[in-house]
Formats: sequence, structure tokens, C-alpha cells
Amino acid sequence: MAERGWARAVIDAVAPSVDGGRFAAKRIAGEPVTIEAHCLIDGHERLRVVLRWQALGIARDGAEHETYEIGMQAEPNDVWSAQFTPPVPGRYRCTIMAWLDAFESWRSEFERRDEPGDIRVALEVGSVLIDAAATRASAADGAHLKRWAQQLRTSAARREIGAADTASLKALALDPARAELVARHADRSGAASAAIEFIADRKLAAFSSWYELFPRSAASDPARHGSFRDVEARLPYIAEMGFDVLYFPPIQPIGRINRKGANNALEARPQDVGSPWAIGSDEGGHKEILPQLGTLEDFRHLMDQARLKGLEIALDLAFQCAPDHPYVREHPQWFRHRPDGSVQYAENPPKKYQDIYPFDFECEDWRALWAELKSVVEFWIARGVRIFRVDNPHTKPFAFWEWLIGEIKRDEPEVIFLAEAFTRPKVMYRLAKLGFTQSYTYFTWRNNKRELTEYFTELTRGPGREYFRANVWPNTPDILHEALQSGLRAAFATRLILAATLSANYGIYGPTFELMESAPREPGSEEYRDSEKYQLRHWALDRPDSLRSLIVRINRIRRDNPALQSDGTLRFCRIDNEQLIAYLKTDGASGNVLLTVVNLDPHNVQSGWLELDLAALQLDAARPYQVHDLLSDQRYPWHGARNFVMLDPQRLPAHVFKLRRHLRTEHDFDYFL
Amino acid sequence: MAERGWARAVIDAVAPSVDGGRFAAKRIAGEPVTIEAHCLIDGHERLRVVLRWQALGIARDGAEHETYEIGMQAEPNDVWSAQFTPPVPGRYRCTIMAWLDAFESWRSEFERRDEPGDIRVALEVGSVLIDAAATRASAADGAHLKRWAQQLRTSAARREIGAADTASLKALALDPARAELVARHADRSGAASAAIEFIADRKLAAFSSWYELFPRSAASDPARHGSFRDVEARLPYIAEMGFDVLYFPPIQPIGRINRKGANNALEARPQDVGSPWAIGSDEGGHKEILPQLGTLEDFRHLMDQARLKGLEIALDLAFQCAPDHPYVREHPQWFRHRPDGSVQYAENPPKKYQDIYPFDFECEDWRALWAELKSVVEFWIARGVRIFRVDNPHTKPFAFWEWLIGEIKRDEPEVIFLAEAFTRPKVMYRLAKLGFTQSYTYFTWRNNKRELTEYFTELTRGPGREYFRANVWPNTPDILHEALQSGLRAAFATRLILAATLSANYGIYGPTFELMESAPREPGSEEYRDSEKYQLRHWALDRPDSLRSLIVRINRIRRDNPALQSDGTLRFCRIDNEQLIAYLKTDGASGNVLLTVVNLDPHNVQSGWLELDLAALQLDAARPYQVHDLLSDQRYPWHGARNFVMLDPQRLPAHVFKLRRHLRTEHDFDYFL
Repeated sequence: MAERGWARAVIDAVAPSVDGGRFAAKRIAGEPVTIEAHCLIDGHERLRVVLRWQALGIARDGAEHETYEIGMQAEPNDVWSAQFTPPVPGRYRCTIMAWLDAFESWRSEFERRDEPGDIRVALEVGSVLIDAAATRASAADGAHLKRWAQQLRTSAARREIGAADTASLKALALDPARAELVARHADRSGAASAAIEFIADRKLAAFSSWYELFPRSAASDPARHGSFRDVEARLPYIAEMGFDVLYFPPIQPIGRINRKGANNALEARPQDVGSPWAIGSDEGGHKEILPQLGTLEDFRHLMDQARLKGLEIALDLAFQCAPDHPYVREHPQWFRHRPDGSVQYAENPPKKYQDIYPFDFECEDWRALWAELKSVVEFWIARGVRIFRVDNPHTKPFAFWEWLIGEIKRDEPEVIFLAEAFTRPKVMYRLAKLGFTQSYTYFTWRNNKRELTEYFTELTRGPGREYFRANVWPNTPDILHEALQSGLRAAFATRLILAATLSANYGIYGPTFELMESAPREPGSEEYRDSEKYQLRHWALDRPDSLRSLIVRINRIRRDNPALQSDGTLRFCRIDNEQLIAYLKTDGASGNVLLTVVNLDPHNVQSGWLELDLAALQLDAARPYQVHDLLSDQRYPWHGARNFVMLDPQRLPAHVFKLRRHLRTEHDFDYFL
Repeated sequence: MAERGWARAVIDAVAPSVDGGRFAAKRIAGEPVTIEAHCLIDGHERLRVVLRWQALGIARDGAEHETYEIGMQAEPNDVWSAQFTPPVPGRYRCTIMAWLDAFESWRSEFERRDEPGDIRVALEVGSVLIDAAATRASAADGAHLKRWAQQLRTSAARREIGAADTASLKALALDPARAELVARHADRSGAASAAIEFIADRKLAAFSSWYELFPRSAASDPARHGSFRDVEARLPYIAEMGFDVLYFPPIQPIGRINRKGANNALEARPQDVGSPWAIGSDEGGHKEILPQLGTLEDFRHLMDQARLKGLEIALDLAFQCAPDHPYVREHPQWFRHRPDGSVQYAENPPKKYQDIYPFDFECEDWRALWAELKSVVEFWIARGVRIFRVDNPHTKPFAFWEWLIGEIKRDEPEVIFLAEAFTRPKVMYRLAKLGFTQSYTYFTWRNNKRELTEYFTELTRGPGREYFRANVWPNTPDILHEALQSGLRAAFATRLILAATLSANYGIYGPTFELMESAPREPGSEEYRDSEKYQLRHWALDRPDSLRSLIVRINRIRRDNPALQSDGTLRFCRIDNEQLIAYLKTDGASGNVLLTVVNLDPHNVQSGWLELDLAALQLDAARPYQVHDLLSDQRYPWHGARNFVMLDPQRLPAHVFKLRRHLRTEHDFDYFL
């Protein structure tokens, strides 16, 4: 190939592939990955196709990782496929190699031959191919092959080859064990190849339940500024609800210059605590902790306690500075100065952040700036943090993220980056392609049946499914959607259940969520009134109307049912009521099938006929089966494809049914799930 | 960009693009090409995007072709688009460039500013940007810009900027004419770029009507071997039927060794003429003409006569040799010899070509072989041939075709290559990607409504639409489909009309087709009995049952109706009878709309209700419109979306309706088409 510059074999349409291999597709370590390609050759000869895979980067012993090879199987219509399982998180390269298998081509032609003259020539041709394989083989294999080639030559040299000899000569030439030996020493010099890369993340990247809180509002005493100690006291509450990620807004010192007051007031009063996203003051910058929250030692202690509770701490990565951040003084060249010497504050129209200076990622000194920002991530990684929620990545250069995430994950492949980009669709997808592990979505603004169906169909079946992992939130500190401003319990329950069952990654911002905080700053606003972004709040967690027990239930259902732990199998069902939405998720390995039905109307009872594709579910249309509502623990016998459902929002606005197939006879009711 | 290695702007999803730019999309010279891309930038600044296009290769004056630039327009959702029209056939490169438009970003921010302090700073920022543009500008533009910058600076330096000054300062700073001057001298140093290529073919590549005949069967005297002179006498007959391409099987000397007899007999009798695809004998090889057909001078005369009749001659490119071809003797290294010294004849299972040796495209001397084959194409191009039907390209290396077609079309972009590859789907598509201008299809084997609908939907709406141009044939010398073996006139008429209306490129193998030759070599075979491939035939062209007049009509309809001259607009219509198929083709520029309805049952009258999407056709549901059958010249008033059709195969098995929209009132019946 190298010498002549062209190959007989051709590889086309490698899948999964993101932008023709420009970006890596995302998968989970320990889960099998299926790779397909169209492999073609002119003429009628046989192809051989292998998949070689290798972890990228440097192994612990300082050497390159080993390369493994598996054969790819021919499927119908020139498609070849193979599976490999990335054993641990990391980046992997898969290389498909295809070449003309001269020996198999010869064998398949030999099988068709019956004329003694043809067989004589074919024996000679085969002996040449076997001899050639022998020269590429080990000494033992080579000797074995040479003996075989000689046998073929001797047979070809016989004076007579009668019809009676054909069978024995064919048996000699087509011996499968010896053919295998030739295959092992194939001539690959003319192989075509095509490579794609994968990011294998740990399981939490695909299945996670997030809980966001402001540590400074965690104090038991309403008058006091909360601290990491207070958060420690809150851990059992959060862990018992079944979350596994606990995410904090920035924990760094907060700027005093242009500090915002309560409800985003431009002038802060002396007692105002400011926005945690206005990072940096005399007390330090991105590598320090706000003293009221505690010390690095307190943070370490909190990390340990959280881990014991099965909770992982996620930090906020907000690459921006308060005007009194040490960087502004020490590295003025990292900010864009206007002709009057001032720095323009950040804007994310229509929002204005008078208390925040953006970095100038394009400044002359960009290399030093980028390196410093990388060192911020490394600083927190060194303190045990493995999850970062990245603030507004869409206002920093794409190239910066591709570089930063690549650098960090090369050494720490377990790290998870969640992109908080609420922006235009193609920008959100681009950030995911660049390497973000998870991405916030438009879920908060998708409320009716059509919107939810279209959006989640796009997310789970569109091209983004290879690289964009949704993390859906009914609320965030920035978004109190109109649907929740009613304060109706059913509205909160509906959004919670939708989030937790539509998406394997979801989160809530608490305790506002479970306590159904619903007042906007002003009518028409999506901002919370008395938002924790600008002031301390105190929460009565044991309020009897808290959604806590529903959250416990839904998170337990998520843990117990693998169908809810990934998104690719999501399929919407027909149901003849616009206020009812129904969808299936399945887990192939375990046979686990969940059917969720949600009443989107928080005011009225809604009912309708739901249609299931029984054949796709491998359900027998002639026999009853059972749906078991894991929320209410009620069980219903269902028959056939169409069944009736009714949901009262005053009770529970949803069913989360586990399908139980009837296995034996109608009289011997038994379930295998 | 070059110095820092990264760009703020990002270009994604360039369309049309074949395999991420690996191959060129195909278009027609003189017809506008729309190019789209997703262009993104972080943050809220403005992008500017341009399309630069250039013909590749060397212009007549020996220099590179000029590069043209047009602005791309922002469509919703980060899509940018532009149109360019390749003026002449050739290969073109289009490069999209996108960069942060600092000045437009400043302008759009300035528009939002109202605070005097903000305006003062903004004026200064703007003056810096304008000064920078001045340094990139011509002397005249530069002076103009410098004056403007100075005006902005002077205004900014005023002691007071009152609310009253805001309007006049904004008018000064936002002056669109001067902004245009800045745009002309934009700083593109940080631009991102992405390039794709197009092959622009001449119109005949997309819209052509082919007629194939064996010149040796063209003699008026049944006892005589036909010649180019006889073909000249046949030209009026072919031209009057409305064809524009006349294609001959190979015209070269035919081998005598292993010559085939009539009906593919292994032993030829002395009078047998052999298969024209067994090229080469003592009389010469690929650059000679079979003496019975005539001389090169006779060929030149025929070419001239054909041109006068509006017919272009297409030759067959069969890269293979009879055993007595001069190449076999002069270049034995171009063939693969078996250990017994023999060359294995060609096979295309289950077909065996004992009279043909394949080339070994991988031989040591492949460069010389490939160069010689290229010289064959050049030989016939030098004699005026611009269309080649390529025999069995799928049995030669993909790389060979990409090289050969690229080389030939670089110098002769008007050349058309038709791929005769009846093989696996992905191989057919691959050959088209590599550069073949047109491709044979599975049309011959797609007969019922579902097959036709699925196949033509795939061809016109699948990814192949960018590079695979179908050329559909109801019959070929190799394929007499079972559907035609009935000999029913309706069956022939149906297949003719389907071919001519479903596909802008089509052809028939005559006179077998118009004379409804229907006898297979044996039952179950797709070979013609007494095939012209192996013997001379004589045809009674003036037989009264000839389909000639129907062919005349259908080809005239194709010429008169631009809707039938391209394939991208094909849409199938609902019709409630499995034996009736209906489809629309439209031409946007002229408003020409054709609706074809075909009865696929050659035995029975079939009728049904046909549904049209009136809104898509811009027809008023409340008013009647007219369908004018161009085959029968009958006109029918239709109302609404559903109308009744009935087709009697004993008369005509199809309607080819031209839609005539009713323009004014019901009482003032008038059509604009």
C-alpha cells in the first residue's frame, strides 16, 4: 500500500462517527460498543476486516497502551461489524483495517471447481499462496505451512486427476484448520484503514441524579451564614432522597466592588453577601474558599463525609472575575480594557453582570491565561473534585474548551464536565462535540406533549445521541419556569417525574424545588424572588408538604430499574389525549421495561386509551400481562394493545409502570421480572 | 489564525458535502448551487461569512482561475447560505470563510447604548476599529476612514454629552455607507474556513435520452454485416424518435480465440461474428475499428452526421482483452498468469466469459497499464467522443476509476462516463462518488408499486442524490426482464413511460425495444434468444406495431417539460389501487408541473382515487383546475384533492398530465401554463 499508494479495499460510512471522525463519540466504560462500516472491494474476491483498538495516552508504566485486535463480521449488504468494550474510562482509538483475503478468495473459488484441469491449476496457485504465508509465519507455523504447500504441489503434479480424486483433493486443499493458520499470517500490506475515536466515561456520566444547593443557606440557624459544616449536617437528608451528585455554586471569595444586593440590586448594602459567581476579592481568587464557608481542610472533610454517604461533590467552574479579583490587579493583560482604561462588565443579553469581568481569551498573553485556568481545574482535582458544572461555556472560545477538556481528561478520564450553556441549539451541540460530558437542555421550557415528544426524540435519536448527553432540570437558580409559578404541587410533581424518567441524568435545585418555592421576582420574570443568588435563605426542610418522599420514591425507581439508566431506547407511545404523555424505556440486557404515563394538566383528571406495540415488547396479544405502578405500588392486569389510563393530579399525576410479562398459562400467573 | 492556531468562529455541517468533503457533489453548469453551513461563534458578537469559489485546474491562459467572493446570508438558527452558479463544466472549489466581525459587533452594541458615559467610551472604541481598517485600506479609502475616526474621537472628547446629543452621535457612528467601507477592509486574520468541491457537468449529464444499437445489425440487407454507413442511414429514424445519445457496444476488432457462437455457444462456427466485448485480434486492439464497420474516417463521418441530427455518439469502454488482443502478446505482464502459464478468463458469476481476459490492475507494471488505458480514452476523445458507457467498472479497482476520471475530466470536463455496474448497492454508490457522471440502476428489476416507490425515493432523496445520477433502462442486451417476456404491448409501454418520466436520464436498447422483442434464450433466462451480442440480426423497423410513435411522443414531452429534466423534485402521490402508481415532478423556475399515473397491470383496466397535496401545488381547493394528458392530448377538469383516474392497458397504460392552474374566476377559464 505504502509503495503504490492505493488499496483494493475501501472503507466507507464508519459508525458511530461524529463529523466524519473530527470528534469522538461518547460511550460508557464497561459497556460494549458496536462499530460498523461498509467495506467494499471491486470484483468477486473476499475481504478480511479487523478492528484494532487501543486506549490513547500513556499507560501507568509509561509505555503506550496495548493494541487489541478482533475480527469484524460480514453482515448483509457489505456492512461489517464488531463489538469492543472499553475496560476503563479514557479515550480510545478504533482502527478498521480491510484487505483482500487472497487465500479465502482462492478457497471459495476452489470449492466451485470440479474439472480436473482446473483443480490441478488451483492446487498450484494455492501452494504459492501458502508458501507466501509461510515466509511471514513463525518457524513452527512456517514449517507446517511449507509441508502443506508441498502436498498440494505433489498432488498437482500427478499424471492423472480423475473424478474420483476430486473429493480427497478438495478435502486436502480446503482444510479449515490449516486455512486458519494462513489467515493468521495474512499479507496486510495492501490494507485500507479508517480510524475513529471514543470517549469512554464512567457510568455516572450517563446516569446521575443531581442536587444543587447554596452552602451559605444551609445553616440551621436562620441568622447565620451557612458553612461546609452545615452542609455536612444536610448530607443525610440529600443522600436519603437518593441523589448521587451534590453541586455547589462557586465556593470562592466573593467580590466587593459592584457587589449585587438582594434581588439583583445594583447597590449592595453592607450586610449583602453578593453573587457567588462574582469570584475573587482581597480574600483570594479561583483557588481559595470564601472564609465564611470554611477552609480547604473543612472542604476536604466535607468531601470525605459526602463520599461516605454515596454523594459526590460537583463544583462550579465560572471563568470570570469580580473587579477585585487578584487576577485583575496581577494580570491586567487578561482583560480587555476600553480606551478609558475601564473593563466592560459581562453581559449575557438581556442579563447584565455589573459585578463580573470576563476574561479576554484572545489577549496577547492567551497562552498564560489558558494555562492558569487549566491550573484552576487541576487545583480542585488535586482536592478530590471529579465533577465540574461549567458556567456559561458558550461565552468562551470553542477552541479553549476543546483544549482544556482534552488536557484534563487525558490525565483524569473520570472527570465529568457539565456544560451550562442555555443558548442556541447548534452552539449547545458544538460544545458537546468538543468534549463536554453532559449538557443542560431546553427541558425547562418544553412543557406540552408536542414539545416534549419532539425534543426528546431529537435528543435520543438525532445525530447528537452520539455525543450530547442531556442533563435535565425542572428548575435552576436562574430559571423558575412559569409552569412552576402556579405553586401547584401537581406541577412540581409532574416536572420532577418527567425529568427523572425521560432522562437518565437529571437534577433539581433545592430546597427550593422540594419546598415548591414559586414566587417570581416580578410577574413575567423567570428569576426567583429573594433569590439565593444574592442573599442568604433559610429553609424549613421538614415542612409536611415537601416533595421529599416523592423524590425518594422516584430516585429509588431509577436505581432499581436499568431501563431508566440510559436514554437511547426512549420511545413515545400513542395515547389519545393531548394532556397525557406516555413513553417506554427498555434495558436489553435485563429485559427491564418501564412505561411512564404523565398527566400534563395540573388542574384536571385526564384519561385516555394508550397503545402499545406488543410485538416490539414481545408481549403475546392473546394473553394478559401486568403493569405495576412503582409510584403507587398498584398492579393492573392489561390485555392487548389498547388500555385505559386515568390520572388525577390531586393524587399523583403519573404512573411509572414496570411491565411484567405473563410467562405461563392464564391460570398459572407468574412474572419473570 | 496562523500564528495562534485557533479561531473564534467555527464552521460545521457544510452542505452539500459528500463524506465530509472526501468526494465532490455533482451539479450542472449554468444552474445555481445553494451552499449552506452552520457558522458559530462563542458569545454575542457578530459573524461575517463569505463564500469564495474558483474553478480548479488551469485556465486557457495557463494561469489559475480567478477566485470570486460573495457574502453568505444568515438564515435562522445559525445557518448561513449563498448561491453560486458554475459558469461552465469543470471542477470547482468553494471555500467558506467565517470570522468575528468586530466592527459590526461594535455597531450592534452601540445601537443599544444610551448612557452618555457608555457612548463616550463606545465612540473611542469605534475610532480604534476604524483606524485599524484604514491601515488595511487603499489610500483613498484609508484617508476617508481616518477622517471618520477622527470625528468620533473629537466627539468623545467633548466635555459634555447630553441626552440631546445622543441621536446625532449615533447617526455619525452608525453611518451605514462608512460601515460598508470598514467591512470592505475587514481583518480576516482569524477566519475559520472549510472547503468543498463540486463537479459541474454539462446539461446532458442530467437530462439525456439514450438509444443503444449494434451497428453490425444496421444493414438494410439482412445478409450483410452492418457498417457505420448503415448507421448513418438509420440516424433520421433515431433522431426523429427524439433521442440525443446514440450508444454503440464496442466497435473494435473482435477476438478469434475462444470466440463465442450464437446464443453464447462455446464453439464458434466460421461465420460467427463473436461478442464485441471480446476486444482485440490481429486486426488491432482498443484503438482500432473492426474493419467490417468501417475506418476511422468512416467513424469521423458518422460522428459529423450524427451531430447534424442532434445526436451524440457514446462509445463503450470495455477494459479487457480477447486472448488474441495485441496487448496479450506485447504486454504479458498486464495479465495474471497461473502456474501453468495460462490466463484465467473473466467471470462475473454466474456469467463466464471464456473469450475475455481481464487486466491485472495490480500487476508490477500497473503504472504503464493504467497510463495505456488512459491513452485509450484520450484516443477516442481526440476523435470527438465525449460520452463513454463503462463496461463492468465494479470489476476494476475503485482507485483506478477515481484516477482515470479525474485525469480525463480535468482536461475535458464535458466528458460523461456512465457506469455499467449492476452490482451491490454500496459498490454502485461508491463508483458514483469516485466520479462516474451517470450510473445504471436496478430499475429493470423494480416493477411493482412498492419497489418503484422505495427505489426512486432512495435515489432522489437519499444521500446519493448529491452524486449518483440514475440512468434507467427498461432493457439492455444483457437484460430482457421477465416483465417484457410476455410480449404484451402494454408491458413495454408501461416500462418505457416509467423510465422516461421517473428519471431524467433513460435509455432503451433498440430496435429490440420498439419492436417488442420478447423471447428469452430459455425459460427463466434474462438473455435474449438469438442475442445480438453473438450474431447479426435484421430488424423490420417499419412494422406497424412498433412502439416508435409512443417513443416520439414521450421524448417530445420530455423536451417540452422542464419538470422531467431533473429528478430532485420527484414525489409519489397516494392512490388507492396497488396497480396504479402516481408521481409528481415540478420545475420551480418555470412552474411546470407534471403528474404521471401509470397502470402497472398490463392485463386489466385499473381505476382509483388519486390524492394531491393542493397546498404544496399552490392550487386553490375551492376552484377547479385542469389536467392535460400530454400523451392523449385530452383535458380533464379536476376539483379538490381527490380525483378519479382509470387506465386501460389495451389503449394507453398511463396519463402524463400537465397541471394547468386556474388563474382567475370560474367563469373566466384561463391557464398560465
